[in-house]
Amino acid sequence: VSATQPITPVILSGGSGTRLWPVSRSERPKQFIALTSPHTMFELTLARVAGLEGSTAPIVVANAAHADIVRDQGGPDATVILEPCARNTAPAIALAALALEESDGALLVMPSDHVIADVPVFLAAIERARPLVAQGWLVTFGIEPDAPETGFGYIALGDELAPGVRRVARFIEKPDAARAEAMLAQGGHVWNAGIFLFGARAFLAALGAHQPAMLAAARAAMAGAAREGSAIHPAADAFAACPSDSIDYAVMERAEKVACVPVSMGWSDVGSWDSLYELASKDMDDNALHGAAHAIEARGCLVRSDGPAVTVVGASDLIVIATGDEILILPRGRSQDVRKAVAAIAKRTPAA
Amino acid sequence: VSATQPITPVILSGGSGTRLWPVSRSERPKQFIALTSPHTMFELTLARVAGLEGSTAPIVVANAAHADIVRDQGGPDATVILEPCARNTAPAIALAALALEESDGALLVMPSDHVIADVPVFLAAIERARPLVAQGWLVTFGIEPDAPETGFGYIALGDELAPGVRRVARFIEKPDAARAEAMLAQGGHVWNAGIFLFGARAFLAALGAHQPAMLAAARAAMAGAAREGSAIHPAADAFAACPSDSIDYAVMERAEKVACVPVSMGWSDVGSWDSLYELASKDMDDNALHGAAHAIEARGCLVRSDGPAVTVVGASDLIVIATGDEILILPRGRSQDVRKAVAAIAKRTPAA
Repeated sequence: VSATQPITPVILSGGSGTRLWPVSRSERPKQFIALTSPHTMFELTLARVAGLEGSTAPIVVANAAHADIVRDQGGPDATVILEPCARNTAPAIALAALALEESDGALLVMPSDHVIADVPVFLAAIERARPLVAQGWLVTFGIEPDAPETGFGYIALGDELAPGVRRVARFIEKPDAARAEAMLAQGGHVWNAGIFLFGARAFLAALGAHQPAMLAAARAAMAGAAREGSAIHPAADAFAACPSDSIDYAVMERAEKVACVPVSMGWSDVGSWDSLYELASKDMDDNALHGAAHAIEARGCLVRSDGPAVTVVGASDLIVIATGDEILILPRGRSQDVRKAVAAIAKRTPAA
Repeated sequence: VSATQPITPVILSGGSGTRLWPVSRSERPKQFIALTSPHTMFELTLARVAGLEGSTAPIVVANAAHADIVRDQGGPDATVILEPCARNTAPAIALAALALEESDGALLVMPSDHVIADVPVFLAAIERARPLVAQGWLVTFGIEPDAPETGFGYIALGDELAPGVRRVARFIEKPDAARAEAMLAQGGHVWNAGIFLFGARAFLAALGAHQPAMLAAARAAMAGAAREGSAIHPAADAFAACPSDSIDYAVMERAEKVACVPVSMGWSDVGSWDSLYELASKDMDDNALHGAAHAIEARGCLVRSDGPAVTVVGASDLIVIATGDEILILPRGRSQDVRKAVAAIAKRTPAA
């Protein structure tokens, strides 16, 4: 294994994106929608690593229900692993790692629904991680925090292993506000963004050590997989039997050789309408308008319509999201409450 | 002319209702929409006087463009005068008065887009006015004010002519806030609601004295009218030549024998979404919800949809009005700004 080990981008597309309802729906979640640019976040994720030296065609791990969208947006080169059911990130990554086990390529695991504004910084961080990956380390990329966010897990950084690469001291679950403030003030803590780089065999070895049932189920699912062009359909029964867990819980928090590359690259998980407002370009009154959206004497509003024309008059700091069949209105800063709307609507229309 | 002179309800339906956009549109203005009850305000206006003793079938004066709606909602007995163009209230009333000139019936003139909660009080006020009408007085009904409204004209009350009937001292244009406060504090001032009772010949005599050109044009329009069942189509050229003016300016402020019956009858002109909120029944959180409208941790909101489902989360004191093609959002208390939205939309879509 050398420092120029080929890297395969592994795009995880399992999220359902309910926090961006009503635009993001289970049949077309946020990664497949052009929310932040004329391109979808899924497309941006693929494009981001096109310039990475020594990279191969990507692997996409997606919900089988999204096969058509992935084919449309994924380009002709991608291998697509279509999960017959959702089993969280550790099994999804295991499927991709098994596809690369023989060649022992490296996996650059990336969620499909993040935005990274400064791609060269990201690519440079990958280069810093490469020598460690060649030595069997599991590397995570940690986002330098600029606010005491309570919606992310954190990573406490330990000793420097190489220039710009730190040992992970420990993973920290989503903190309360006081804890988040303290970590921001103290320094040495970064956000866990779910972006990883590791060799296929190193990951599978750690998975086998800590989650043997998960590895066995994933192996059985891939052994029994049906292949159809560039699409891989893992065996449904075997994969259904796989325990469900995140890579953080299942592997990263337990493995020995876990490193972190801290990076500041204009990252956002576009996790809410509030974060989309922060990312959006705004007019002179700080309104972010998209589609058939109009503001009159309004300030600080995010207004987006793919459906009826929306006119906001004289209001401040509102989020208004309209589709052809649903309209959501809430104050800025409360966009985590979208889940309450989604829950209420699920109750109203059990079939939806 | 006796105190039991027959009364013909004359319903004026010329308003365009743009202040209740986007529900109220020029092709179906607010009087023809069920905004305050399962019945439209036009229907409620007709029903209001059904129990009036000695009343005849009504006359409706409407925009020719609304002929079908008036036929649907007006009932089989109404005579419908279809104006070929809008010339304000004085000419509209003149057309109806000319239709009643020969019999010298009394006209009970009522806008079609008001709400009166306490109909028996209104009917009793009409009875108080009748003897004066028989003596040739032009009677207006003045609403006892309960707030310093600046959106209405006021009437200063003079001497008592009969129990509950006052001479009109003068008409006062829409006041500024200070003037409105002063009139409310002082007493003896009522809102001019545009509701009148007078004999056909008394009105036409006053019109002839003060607006001879208007009377002549209206007379020519009715002389040349085409009749089609219960519909009357005044001659278009003659009516187009008629000066345009309100009954207040053209007649009431100039005539000699003008009386006012002050009345407190739960009147509203439903002149804005704010006033509709005041009229509406509300839930425990003071939300008024109509149609596909849902509120979660929201307070004091008016939410109405005839189109997509609307969900308001965590917002206070908002007005949200959705139709299939337009959505309007503004804070409560600013609903007079609807005209700004209408003007902006007219600019966007000159054809609309």
